[in-house]
Amino acid sequence: MTVTAPQGFVAAGIACGIKPSGNPDLSLVATDDARPVNAAAVFTSNLATAAPVQVSKAHLEATGGKAVAVILNSGNANAATGESGRRDAERMCDLVAEGLGCRSDAVLVCSTGLIGIPLPMDTIESGIPRVVSSLREDGGNNAAQAIMTTDTVRKEVLIDAGTFRVGGMAKGAAMLAPNMATMLAVLTTDADASPGLLQQVLRDGVADSFNAMSVDGCQSTNDTVILLASARAGAVDEGELAAAVADACASLARQMCADAEGATKVVDVRVVGAASDDDARRAARQVAESNLCKCSWYGEDPYWGRIVAELGVAGVKFDPDLVSISYGDITVCRRGIAAMHDATALTEVMAAREITITCDLGLGDGEGVIITNDLSHAYIDENMRTS
Amino acid sequence: MTVTAPQGFVAAGIACGIKPSGNPDLSLVATDDARPVNAAAVFTSNLATAAPVQVSKAHLEATGGKAVAVILNSGNANAATGESGRRDAERMCDLVAEGLGCRSDAVLVCSTGLIGIPLPMDTIESGIPRVVSSLREDGGNNAAQAIMTTDTVRKEVLIDAGTFRVGGMAKGAAMLAPNMATMLAVLTTDADASPGLLQQVLRDGVADSFNAMSVDGCQSTNDTVILLASARAGAVDEGELAAAVADACASLARQMCADAEGATKVVDVRVVGAASDDDARRAARQVAESNLCKCSWYGEDPYWGRIVAELGVAGVKFDPDLVSISYGDITVCRRGIAAMHDATALTEVMAAREITITCDLGLGDGEGVIITNDLSHAYIDENMRTS
Repeated sequence: MTVTAPQGFVAAGIACGIKPSGNPDLSLVATDDARPVNAAAVFTSNLATAAPVQVSKAHLEATGGKAVAVILNSGNANAATGESGRRDAERMCDLVAEGLGCRSDAVLVCSTGLIGIPLPMDTIESGIPRVVSSLREDGGNNAAQAIMTTDTVRKEVLIDAGTFRVGGMAKGAAMLAPNMATMLAVLTTDADASPGLLQQVLRDGVADSFNAMSVDGCQSTNDTVILLASARAGAVDEGELAAAVADACASLARQMCADAEGATKVVDVRVVGAASDDDARRAARQVAESNLCKCSWYGEDPYWGRIVAELGVAGVKFDPDLVSISYGDITVCRRGIAAMHDATALTEVMAAREITITCDLGLGDGEGVIITNDLSHAYIDENMRTS
Repeated sequence: MTVTAPQGFVAAGIACGIKPSGNPDLSLVATDDARPVNAAAVFTSNLATAAPVQVSKAHLEATGGKAVAVILNSGNANAATGESGRRDAERMCDLVAEGLGCRSDAVLVCSTGLIGIPLPMDTIESGIPRVVSSLREDGGNNAAQAIMTTDTVRKEVLIDAGTFRVGGMAKGAAMLAPNMATMLAVLTTDADASPGLLQQVLRDGVADSFNAMSVDGCQSTNDTVILLASARAGAVDEGELAAAVADACASLARQMCADAEGATKVVDVRVVGAASDDDARRAARQVAESNLCKCSWYGEDPYWGRIVAELGVAGVKFDPDLVSISYGDITVCRRGIAAMHDATALTEVMAAREITITCDLGLGDGEGVIITNDLSHAYIDENMRTS
């Protein structure tokens, strides 16, 4: 169930002293022979890009899609730290490269934590040699542990595709426990695939998983998903690889939603009958990001009027007289007006930890889903103060 | 300080029994001689338009911009009520027209309250004759009272332009106490102006007031702002009229923000130095609608990293190395990184009931402001259950 499950990878996670709590905060995932393998990554589209994102992007470009290792720290995002932040991120890669005996630009770097505070480089300078010497074939759990911020459980995945495997770890801060402001994921596979193919399957996998998840609509400066392919399992079917990567991403995304701090519910907002899939996704996102809807779900209140109101401003084709809305399989609004329903059964649906809301726009065949959470008092507790 | 302050208007507000609480819930504003005057209105752009919005639009079109009266009820939005909802809204206009002795299409109608529930027409049938017979020159306060939902104070305004006056009343549910899902405003003036000019000055006034306010980004199905002009004060300077209407709108908008339920702060998010005014307004809205930023303000936490992150995803021209951010006049981020500042003075700024945040993008001359609030536990209490 870890990033080291596919052949050819080692990992480690240690407490190096970045977090005042003393919890683990430095992770390393590397190839077991310190030789470069094909790699791909997708990064935040936030223009206020954190230093490690800038450095990882530049490294992947310089190598044409090769990497030996990914170094990750929690407790500090190294974002809004200017030129010295970029030097610090480069220095992290240099130190790993020294330890592993590889080129600096074969090392990718991720950071997660508070924005606007310089990295404590003394601590990191002494930590990196230790994490390098801790690399082990069974170090995946430790690596997944050390990227956690307000996560309460590790997020790991293993997809066994028979001839090859895809492993992964993630931390679900991004939109879930957003005061740490980042979502990071590292995926590994022993499939043999070109950087171009890896990039394509990763981009597609992310589109339907991490990018179909929205807890508060806040997009981090540090979001990064990296895929490394050791090639140890040899060539594989492209479709199978795409499916395995997509499954791994979907599993990690759902694990994040399930561990969303402050949230009491995981809500799948499904829009069907839209004029297009794009319209459906957009309408689902509008509902998923509505504070009024989120408060209702927290209160287990099946007040569908707010959902109709959000669909009406989603910027998609919409006819209020055609829309139907269901919680679970209980339809509460049919063709734009209140529908008779079993109120007792509805109470049970609303009380469940997972709710699926289906909005049928009655217009076409477009479909889309956004996974989200409710908005609770605990979300505010979590985010009203950073210290 | 009321809609009846300009010459030529009467108003009334009564408790007719729509609200279970027995609070006032039916308002009427009319010309004092029941003759039509020039009128203009702007309505929600939500496609899930409530029945009264559809009816008011149709009436204004049919009359070419004339009206005698506006009937308003609180306690029920008459939205997502289908064809019978439209009949109910028409019926409200018919009853007012009978009482006043004017045409039905000279009556405009507004509703505010829960979505998806049919209007209690028996109650309204008996209430409308009572509200008509209560019309008085000093009935403005009662009218403003009877449109309140979760508002704690009446919102009224009087702009005295010397030769003419603009009066107004509003209810600040919209984005402020949004479980009632509507913001309504009725403005009156004794200036003489054509429907076309009224429409123009109203649209401009709304753009910089109600449309520059965002509490939770949720846009109602019922939002309506109506302007009636009795012409009793004669012809006026167009610029003066535009200024007076804009001032009236701005005052009402700020009164709504100040009375925002659940909110503990009014926050002006100013963006300057943007590539254009459009960019500035858009960036300000992105920050104003961020749950993470709103939680910080509630916690009086000057964590500017979240503001930078929101500016980075606002879809505007942005360079993270040029941005500066200030709370009040205390700059906490300069050219993309943390700035030295007086932490004690900053604590005072954050503790105030009103905070101005200035984001200088360092790119051009574009400026824009969005007025908003913080996100508090009480907002969730207010919105987690509708009953």
